[in-house]
Formats: sequence, structure tokens, C-alpha cells
Amino acid sequence: MSRDSQAQSRVRLFVSAALGPGQTVALTDGQAHYLLRVMRLGPGRSVRLFNGRDGEWLAHLKQAGRGPPLAVVERLIRSQEVEDGPWLAFAPVKKQATDFIVEKATELGASKLWPVVTERTVARRVNADRLLAIATEAAEQCGRMSVPEVLAPSTLPALAAAWPQRRAMLVAHPGTGAAPLPILDAIANLYHLPATAEPAKPAAFLIGPEGGLTPAELDLLAGLPCAKIVGLGGLTLRAETAAAAALSCWQAMVEARIGGAMARRSTGKLE
Amino acid sequence: MSRDSQAQSRVRLFVSAALGPGQTVALTDGQAHYLLRVMRLGPGRSVRLFNGRDGEWLAHLKQAGRGPPLAVVERLIRSQEVEDGPWLAFAPVKKQATDFIVEKATELGASKLWPVVTERTVARRVNADRLLAIATEAAEQCGRMSVPEVLAPSTLPALAAAWPQRRAMLVAHPGTGAAPLPILDAIANLYHLPATAEPAKPAAFLIGPEGGLTPAELDLLAGLPCAKIVGLGGLTLRAETAAAAALSCWQAMVEARIGGAMARRSTGKLE
Repeated sequence: MSRDSQAQSRVRLFVSAALGPGQTVALTDGQAHYLLRVMRLGPGRSVRLFNGRDGEWLAHLKQAGRGPPLAVVERLIRSQEVEDGPWLAFAPVKKQATDFIVEKATELGASKLWPVVTERTVARRVNADRLLAIATEAAEQCGRMSVPEVLAPSTLPALAAAWPQRRAMLVAHPGTGAAPLPILDAIANLYHLPATAEPAKPAAFLIGPEGGLTPAELDLLAGLPCAKIVGLGGLTLRAETAAAAALSCWQAMVEARIGGAMARRSTGKLE
Repeated sequence: MSRDSQAQSRVRLFVSAALGPGQTVALTDGQAHYLLRVMRLGPGRSVRLFNGRDGEWLAHLKQAGRGPPLAVVERLIRSQEVEDGPWLAFAPVKKQATDFIVEKATELGASKLWPVVTERTVARRVNADRLLAIATEAAEQCGRMSVPEVLAPSTLPALAAAWPQRRAMLVAHPGTGAAPLPILDAIANLYHLPATAEPAKPAAFLIGPEGGLTPAELDLLAGLPCAKIVGLGGLTLRAETAAAAALSCWQAMVEARIGGAMARRSTGKLE
């Protein structure tokens, strides 16, 4: 490896191919453009690859003919970890704010992103492929070992009908009559804290649109035993801020109470 | 008041003038443009005004000659509240991300925003007036009763020299050797939770640049008795995500443990 391989290897790429010693991985045109034009990395330079299954690997670039370069896998540098963070169901908002929700939710450990069109949702067109591309880039940059799953949009009734009852749904909803359960208390209840054991229940957050959920929608959710309204504080947060705040609280609670063991069950780190 | 005054009065504007019954308030050109062109509100329509001192007032627009409309103050609708949330000291990042830090910090209750140029800060030009405009708009939209103060940029040594020792500085710094104190524990320690009394100490967060603080900078901070390194979880957060996460945790802890009394010491709400 060249002298600057450590610095080069800060470039992480998510690939779909299997990863193992000596394996050759084809890169997409987008990845090739990023490596060659943006990062100015040529043949021989190092990158890190992960695919969500086989861990993270050091690889080097190799030019093959006139097409995009290949990556030749060298050695495992980090074993795969299970990343089963909370799901985030969210009403799409304006384009930039929706992008932000996806990017921040990925950084903050969400394992599944589920767009939900509610009655007051204004932005009804969602490009799931585009959101997946944003999630992939965020996962590459933040050091995650997996990319969150991005689902096709559902309506709220369809989401409710498909919801696994074992997964708690914490609904951030401002302006309800009674004071909602503070979010940290709701998370603590889920995980039976203090604990070092597995969580009693996996979690999810549901973030409504700017105009909030309607009374009929709140009634629908009230019929789900797994759903609970939670409060994020006294101020009126935008939808994207509420999404980041909810996931930040989850991350912080995991970090504080069970030392990250739940979020990052490792099969052993090599570095 | 016209029939739709309730809907109209969802428009909140921050003004510098004193507010009281019958008072006439001049609006800026920017505010006039927003009211007339964006919100399409004309003479007679209602707005809410606040100035960070006199509470929130219902007012109506009045055309006076050819200039921007005036606002005529009618009645108090919400008493002034003390909003002494944490300070946020942050290394400026790219323009969009810095804007985001300011907007989200305002929504999440920060009372003072202090740009800090550190050794690894790439974005060294900060337009404090522009940041104040962003904070003002965010305060108008999220229902705050005040706009956070935006300071001119300091260097880190200047910040350290000027720091009030009674204010705890929680420094979010990734990748230090020892595991840092989880942020929720650090906040809980500050406020001697569980408690319903005043906090023992006011708080601040310091968020470094993308490249982190240097060893020399960490040494400098280690010399401040009020400074403590805190951890936000296992993943590598972007600077703007770390800022939002830290303030979200503070808000959630206040909400969970002392019912918001600390953040929103009210002199009595009228609605």
C-alpha cells in the first residue's frame, strides 16, 4: 500500500457485491465519478467497501480498459455489526427538508425509513430511489455498516394495517390536549431501563406533517396498542427537526444507559 | 377583527419596537414584502408581534401613505417568558450546514449562538447579520418569545478567555481515546436531577468542526474547570447533526425531568 493509504481509505463506498479477499468489485458510474473527479483518486489508491453483510474491507482501485475502475478487495478491517436502530415513519415535507430527514435519520441510526402520506401531507410525490441514494451517501460518510431500508410511501391506514404489533410506535404530535409522555420517559419505558439486556421491544418513531395529524388519524393510531403519543418539548418543531430530535434522544438514551451494546452488537472489531 | 383573524394571526413577526395597546409599529421592507407578497395579507388583517421583552401581541395592518404598512397593536395574547436555554458555541461549516445549525438551534431553544473559528475550521467567513436573520425567522415560526443572540465569531482561545466559569461547557468531541461521558448523564449532572428547583448551573454546548478539535485545543479546554467532553453515540455525526442532537437531548431532559419549568419560567400565560 502506498504511504497515503490510510488517508485514502477514509473514502467509504457502499456496494451490493459480496466482499472477500481478492474479490473484484465493479463500481457504478456515479462511484467512479466521485472517486476520480471529486476525490481525485486513481488506480492503486485505497478505498473502503461495505455491503451491509460482510463487514468493511480495504480495497484498491484498478483500471480495466476504458470503463469505470474496479476495486480489488484486500483485507477485512471491521467486522459486520447488527444495526437494528429504530424505524422512522415520516410524512414527506418539502424536498430539501425531506432530504434532510433521510440524511439525519441515517446518521442517527434509523434502520428503516417509511414515508407516510397523511391527510395534511402536502408533498405527496416521493422518489424512493432518490431518498435511498441520500441514505447511502450518509451511511458511507458517518461510518455505519449498513444503509437503512427506504420503503415506498404508504398511506397512514396502510401503515397502521401493516404495522408489526411488537414494535412500539412513538408518535411525535404537538398540540394535543393532555400533556404527552416526555420522549425520554417513553424510550426508557420501552427498554426497561436500567438494563444491559436486550430491549423488551424494538422501537419506531412516527413524525407527522407540518399541519399535524388530524383527529381521525389520531383516533386510528389510538386503536393500535403499540402506539403512544410522545412530547418533544414546549416549542413547535418543524417536521425535520422533530425527526432528528426523536432519533437523537434514542441514540443518547442507548449511549447513556446500556453503553451502546444494543445499538452496536459487534461480532468483534479488528481495529 | 375579521372572521379569519385567528388564521391570519398565525403570522408572527419579531420587531424591535416597544409593544403596548394602541401602539403603532413600523415594519421593515422585508416584513412588508413577506406580509403583502408572500402571505398576501393587506390592511385590516391580523398579525402577532413579539419583541423579546413585552410579550406577544395581536395587531392589525394599516396602510399609511405609500410606504410599508404599519402594525397597530391591539391586545396582549401571551405574556413574556424567560427563555434562558443553553448557549451553542459552534465552528462554522459550509454555508447551508451553518444556516441549518442556526435554524435548528433556535427551534431547539438555544439562547446564544457563538461562532468559533478553530484550527481545523475551513469556513472562516461568517456573516453574523445573516445568521441573525435566519434565527429571527426560525423564532417567528417556532413560537419562541425571543430571538437568540448571535455573537461575532471568536477564536477558541478568545472564547475560552471570555467564558463565564459558572456556565458548564459540554464539548461534543468524537473519537477521543477514553469513552466520553454520555450527554444525557452530563446534562443530568448539571441539573442535579431529579429536581424541580433551579438548575445548579446554566449550560452550553461546544460543537467542533468536521475535522474535530486538535490535541492543543483539547488541552486548552481541559484547563477550563467548567468544560467536559461528552459523547453523542457511536456514529460519526456531521457538525450540524451534532448541534441539533445535543440541543434535542437538553430539551428532552428538561421536558422529562422538570416539566419544562426551567426552560419556560412563565410570568403567567393568557391563552
